Amino acid sequence: MISIAVDTMGGDHGPADFVDAVAAASINLNVEFLLVGHERTLTALLSEREHNPERIAVYHAPDAVGQYEDAGRAVAAKPDASIAIAARLVREGLAQTLVTAGNPRAILLTADRSFARIAGVGNVALASVFPTETRRGEKEDPFSLILDTGAAPRATAHDLVAYAVMGGAYASVVSRNLRPRVGLLSNGTEEEAELTPEIREASAALREHPGVHYIGPIDAMDIPRGTADIVVCSGFTGSIATKLLEGVHETVLSLARYAYKERAMKRAALVMLQGGVSQLKQLTDWEQYGGAPILGFEYPIIRAHGRSHARALHNAIKIAAKVAGSDLIARIRTGLAACPPDAGDGASS
Amino acid sequence: MISIAVDTMGGDHGPADFVDAVAAASINLNVEFLLVGHERTLTALLSEREHNPERIAVYHAPDAVGQYEDAGRAVAAKPDASIAIAARLVREGLAQTLVTAGNPRAILLTADRSFARIAGVGNVALASVFPTETRRGEKEDPFSLILDTGAAPRATAHDLVAYAVMGGAYASVVSRNLRPRVGLLSNGTEEEAELTPEIREASAALREHPGVHYIGPIDAMDIPRGTADIVVCSGFTGSIATKLLEGVHETVLSLARYAYKERAMKRAALVMLQGGVSQLKQLTDWEQYGGAPILGFEYPIIRAHGRSHARALHNAIKIAAKVAGSDLIARIRTGLAACPPDAGDGASS
Repeated sequence: MISIAVDTMGGDHGPADFVDAVAAASINLNVEFLLVGHERTLTALLSEREHNPERIAVYHAPDAVGQYEDAGRAVAAKPDASIAIAARLVREGLAQTLVTAGNPRAILLTADRSFARIAGVGNVALASVFPTETRRGEKEDPFSLILDTGAAPRATAHDLVAYAVMGGAYASVVSRNLRPRVGLLSNGTEEEAELTPEIREASAALREHPGVHYIGPIDAMDIPRGTADIVVCSGFTGSIATKLLEGVHETVLSLARYAYKERAMKRAALVMLQGGVSQLKQLTDWEQYGGAPILGFEYPIIRAHGRSHARALHNAIKIAAKVAGSDLIARIRTGLAACPPDAGDGASS
Repeated sequence: MISIAVDTMGGDHGPADFVDAVAAASINLNVEFLLVGHERTLTALLSEREHNPERIAVYHAPDAVGQYEDAGRAVAAKPDASIAIAARLVREGLAQTLVTAGNPRAILLTADRSFARIAGVGNVALASVFPTETRRGEKEDPFSLILDTGAAPRATAHDLVAYAVMGGAYASVVSRNLRPRVGLLSNGTEEEAELTPEIREASAALREHPGVHYIGPIDAMDIPRGTADIVVCSGFTGSIATKLLEGVHETVLSLARYAYKERAMKRAALVMLQGGVSQLKQLTDWEQYGGAPILGFEYPIIRAHGRSHARALHNAIKIAAKVAGSDLIARIRTGLAACPPDAGDGASS
């Protein structure tokens, strides 16, 4: 039976939303849940909700890492934080995967202490999802996956190839997209000679890779267009791009206010735009709607946004169940083993 | 008297818009123009427009580099292209600066053949402007300057410091902004330890620089917010950011269509949004409205967008006149000379 460890202490809203999501999932899904957090609180919250008690076990964690704490110090000082205990349950084989809405840096540091990396993985990757117009795979998934969005600022050619392999394996499992298109986020429409050495090297390796459907370097506007199912980039680049994409409503309002000051925009158009943008704001806050993976460790981690409420957490749990019941890690191993050898060194950085 | 060489063959719309802009400027401004392009065409176009013939000299260029040609090959094959002749006029002292709307890569390659770099400059920088809500300097300039946006994909710490110095000197001359705030575009709100080595090193050097008003690392959303007057980044990062910022209307429409498919957005809101966005599209096409500099050569170059019409070119000419009549290059020299010595090596890349 599939088991999922759920860190209930990570999000911005406290454990109640996690308990809501897990209580519902214990009835809907054929999955066992290891609920990690403050035992008495969790037991009390569970007693107030309809759930299947045979599917839920509570594990006490006396401590938690706050969303805005210094992650390095907190992880070192709190070996019994909920995220650490959840990771331990996975490492000990009691669960196959881990769902959390915690501080990303704390998750990465904890995972680094608890899990080995898959052979051939240099940097692990923090992925994000982005809604696009395009539908993909059997599940008609509207989301594309971007990785890395900040686990490591720099990526060697070898890292970029590994991100492509891991992202592709994940999409094939979660979106049932058998041939996910992988693009390397690059500096515009320049001739190939203008690419950075890492991208040039990774691009050559991906063209040779039998298991990756590589569509070439793409430019930043290809992300919202949905040209690629998997957008591969360094963590530095990914964090710049996702920040601008997530803040698109703010950018629009900022430009509209500029335009209005300059009298280039009529008041009516400004009001129209603000109305539409306030609706759009809800949508571009898409991380509320589910989870995205951290890839590269021997165990997959599904990370929900800190702002997640029960609905998003329920979606993240469904994703985790799909991942836990799949051969994701084996697919990643196979994909990494098939990397052309000349991309394996990652000499440049 | 100030002299400006104008390459009339670079833009998307042919020389008529340049002749419109220069004809008007020859009457309005106390500036001499060296109009470079096909002599007979230019003479014919001038004869149809009111202008001051004493302020305009036509220089024949038998050739031109197309906007979408392979720049490397074209520049090598066409030594008498209009951009090359315009650069030659500047180098020979007949003009102090050069205005062009040509292929950016061709401009850079031509300038590299024609001009020396200012002592202490490694990479030259291609700047872009971005409208923000904030007003800056005596001229209440709503634009912030981003550099590098693609002259060189990578930047050492030394390059980043030089971009900050050059951008600051430019803003002090063009926006009469005496203390322009400089930000280093970075990977979000991470602790300083997570910065890339170049940014960490550049950040330390900028804090020590007596002539730069450095406000620290900034994140991508600070660009539209206008937190900094000068946004400094590598060409790779700058090209990703400007592509997303320029394409913001496209991103919004793409997200809105996604939302509508998902029925998360009502038809009325979609129509509202499209109305506002179509107005915004005109505005975010802001490169139409003026010019931005290429900095690092012994002579400043003002580049207008390829799509520029007469109004934008007239604005670019006004900027060029301001720059040509200023001590911009001397200010850059002074600023570079004041760089802390430990930022001068740029060992890492």
